Amino acid sequence: MRENRLAIALYPGSFDPVHNGHLDIIDRACRMYRRVVVGVAKNAEKAPMFPVADRVSMLRAATGRAAVEIMSFEGLTVDFAHRLGAAVIVKGLRAVMDFEYELKMAAMNKRLRPDIETVFMMTAPEFAYLSSTLIREVSGFGGSVSGLIPPIVERRLTQKFSRSQRKR
Amino acid sequence: MRENRLAIALYPGSFDPVHNGHLDIIDRACRMYRRVVVGVAKNAEKAPMFPVADRVSMLRAATGRAAVEIMSFEGLTVDFAHRLGAAVIVKGLRAVMDFEYELKMAAMNKRLRPDIETVFMMTAPEFAYLSSTLIREVSGFGGSVSGLIPPIVERRLTQKFSRSQRKR
Amino acid sequence: MRENRLAIALYPGSFDPVHNGHLDIIDRACRMYRRVVVGVAKNAEKAPMFPVADRVSMLRAATGRAAVEIMSFEGLTVDFAHRLGAAVIVKGLRAVMDFEYELKMAAMNKRLRPDIETVFMMTAPEFAYLSSTLIREVSGFGGSVSGLIPPIVERRLTQKFSRSQRKR
Amino acid sequence: MRENRLAIALYPGSFDPVHNGHLDIIDRACRMYRRVVVGVAKNAEKAPMFPVADRVSMLRAATGRAAVEIMSFEGLTVDFAHRLGAAVIVKGLRAVMDFEYELKMAAMNKRLRPDIETVFMMTAPEFAYLSSTLIREVSGFGGSVSGLIPPIVERRLTQKFSRSQRKR
Amino acid sequence: MRENRLAIALYPGSFDPVHNGHLDIIDRACRMYRRVVVGVAKNAEKAPMFPVADRVSMLRAATGRAAVEIMSFEGLTVDFAHRLGAAVIVKGLRAVMDFEYELKMAAMNKRLRPDIETVFMMTAPEFAYLSSTLIREVSGFGGSVSGLIPPIVERRLTQKFSRSQRKR
Amino acid sequence: MRENRLAIALYPGSFDPVHNGHLDIIDRACRMYRRVVVGVAKNAEKAPMFPVADRVSMLRAATGRAAVEIMSFEGLTVDFAHRLGAAVIVKGLRAVMDFEYELKMAAMNKRLRPDIETVFMMTAPEFAYLSSTLIREVSGFGGSVSGLIPPIVERRLTQKFSRSQRKR
Repeated sequence: MRENRLAIALYPGSFDPVHNGHLDIIDRACRMYRRVVVGVAKNAEKAPMFPVADRVSMLRAATGRAAVEIMSFEGLTVDFAHRLGAAVIVKGLRAVMDFEYELKMAAMNKRLRPDIETVFMMTAPEFAYLSSTLIREVSGFGGSVSGLIPPIVERRLTQKFSRSQRKR
Repeated sequence: MRENRLAIALYPGSFDPVHNGHLDIIDRACRMYRRVVVGVAKNAEKAPMFPVADRVSMLRAATGRAAVEIMSFEGLTVDFAHRLGAAVIVKGLRAVMDFEYELKMAAMNKRLRPDIETVFMMTAPEFAYLSSTLIREVSGFGGSVSGLIPPIVERRLTQKFSRSQRKR
Repeated sequence: MRENRLAIALYPGSFDPVHNGHLDIIDRACRMYRRVVVGVAKNAEKAPMFPVADRVSMLRAATGRAAVEIMSFEGLTVDFAHRLGAAVIVKGLRAVMDFEYELKMAAMNKRLRPDIETVFMMTAPEFAYLSSTLIREVSGFGGSVSGLIPPIVERRLTQKFSRSQRKR
Repeated sequence: MRENRLAIALYPGSFDPVHNGHLDIIDRACRMYRRVVVGVAKNAEKAPMFPVADRVSMLRAATGRAAVEIMSFEGLTVDFAHRLGAAVIVKGLRAVMDFEYELKMAAMNKRLRPDIETVFMMTAPEFAYLSSTLIREVSGFGGSVSGLIPPIVERRLTQKFSRSQRKR
Repeated sequence: MRENRLAIALYPGSFDPVHNGHLDIIDRACRMYRRVVVGVAKNAEKAPMFPVADRVSMLRAATGRAAVEIMSFEGLTVDFAHRLGAAVIVKGLRAVMDFEYELKMAAMNKRLRPDIETVFMMTAPEFAYLSSTLIREVSGFGGSVSGLIPPIVERRLTQKFSRSQRKR
Repeated sequence: MRENRLAIALYPGSFDPVHNGHLDIIDRACRMYRRVVVGVAKNAEKAPMFPVADRVSMLRAATGRAAVEIMSFEGLTVDFAHRLGAAVIVKGLRAVMDFEYELKMAAMNKRLRPDIETVFMMTAPEFAYLSSTLIREVSGFGGSVSGLIPPIVERRLTQKFSRSQRKR
């Protein structure tokens, strides 16, 4: 039973959209845990660029590994982890600002569900500057983000911005 | 084979001396990995307060769990992890200064041994201000560090400083 | 006259809602100053969860010390301190992001009113991860924040979220 | 040709409004580059306090040097630099939060246009706490920001806030 | 009795040598507390540039206020505060690295002596880059630190380095 | 005359030993300035691994560009820049700890020589974790740093450590 729970890790986020820094963490998590669930949070405060169903489908297309499962969720991350039977939440760390926010969340989550542990992995240096926000900004201004995101996301961004171009 | 390697985690450090923040990480690592090896680094640049054999024996007395093994090592941490057959290095994170140093080390270690992953756990808030250096400083000036270190370390520090007092 | 001003400290904030980290600072400030005024800022840019009158009444219920007075205010914090005859503004510090923001504010406030000094107290380690934002988020998703906030706030949050549940 | 491009530097920002910290960077950039273009970004996500035309005219009034040119732009900063024939983007650094954001942007910009280099100058210590946001906040509450902004901005802020006072 | 303890503040440090950033904190502390004791720590780990007696005498010459008293001390800062009957330890904060170290020390000190409170004051922006280490380095290489240190320290540094020059 | 000074940039450091992160900065500086002087500081406080002459010769072998000149220097960096007739000091920035130190140095240098400006370039993400200290540590323990340093340094490190091996 304990073994089972430890074999499952939840990697939660907004993934609006998924980029290569995320895929690197998913890849490395897959080498550490038997089953990795990527949890796409519905409850973003701000209006997301992509609806949750699209964020899920882009992740599915980009990962396509047997060991990875993409699911959306609402509510507290620790509650979702509990429902999944996952004992571990995986997070990527890039910078000091990440770090402080994640420290707060990990401490709160430990308090809410002491049996679930948050583990952090350092983002690979070449992806340390990547964020979904930056991807949205740069592609929104017509800059190329090719090579930083999976092909499926590139196509979707191109569609999105060529369409919004036409609307103007 | 893969399962075996993933079941083993190395928790490396100087442990000069071990304190309750370390013990909290060891405890939590034991819930995540079948076998946890605490690696006591011999190669401290500065003269340690306690010789490596003492640091090992204090850790042994303080942990005393079947799942934990205390070993000293020399050389690169990733090479020791490799010799152990451990696929995971566990580190505790407390503060921004830790974070930046650990980010550098994790990136270098990934490069040296791509098959070994470093995972970070946040130190529990009540231990976030603890460090071996602070323990040494405070107890060196006669301040009480009771409750911050295991009893065995408390006794050893008392012996050390009462002896050095007598020498003066 | 000078003695009087130094006996009065202003502890300003949004307190939306008050949590145990705030209460710890209020407690410690009361041991340092004869009179502590907790100033509840009306002018939050975003819509607060609780109207200012509720934030004031929760603070009153949670403190209930003769030496503490709860008042709401509008406009610049230093101007309110000046009207109170307070020579000291007390702030809690938790993390690096706090620190940089507070550094800017303290420098600006010193320039606006050179006779008013800002003093900072470190948040107790066990409350370092607490923030009103986190309390709102977690309780909004049905997570328990019991033990992190005074009982009056817990009751108010329960009312708020059970009501909003019913509305859906 | 290469000399020409290196002689031109772009100093981009929102300048909503320009303050003395900005003017210090412009001054110092003018001593390093033959021509400095101050680029006022139109595409602020939030509603700016001053429309872009006003931000440009305040900058023009405040600089009035032959070597400085004020222009507004839309889209990616690196694309604007490219259109100008500038090989260098100049940015001021104040604090850790600035630093991390700028690190990300510089890395992305280098990827988008490898021939354009971002160089950073440290804000003078006496201006390290200044930001346009703080200027807006403090003057919005009737606090004096005299000495922190050029006279033209002071007049415009006074007009703005006395008018909004009358409207209430 | 309580009033008496609160009227006394300890400002501890190495002061090797005192600089204008220190003097600014002393000045501001004097406006907040009836009596300010500047505590010069004897127990620096590394060899100090100036012996403790010289550091004390330079501070005395540089302050010369009735409300300030200069004393040297050995051992834990909180124990010295306790012996003085001071309820408050005053510290200056400059940067993130300061901040993290001071956070640790304040948490430890609170644990050692819960009745003694550490309060932090932000260093004035124009002194934020000053440190005794930097003063020693720059003056050791013959750079002018005039205007950053009191005249007495300037004379002593000149003597020190002209003498060491002659020795070579 | 002014043009001449601006055409010269000093890139100072210890370079003990030079690594690819340094070479990236030198390369990019060469695209911005007509002449780049790499200044190798003799006055390291700690005993360097390589004597200054070796550090200079490794840099010469690794750069070999007409536009780059390698020189050693003693004393203050700004004084050396002044003697060279350089109006610009170039520094690489990697992390928050760098940043705070460099902020202090830049402010002090500006005060010592107001006509010399420090400009910062962000280290390329893939080199952000590199430092000479890490190179020395890893190669000292027999780890491979191939690909992180120029071939000449690799040969010298191999010689150094195989020799010290034999000595044991």
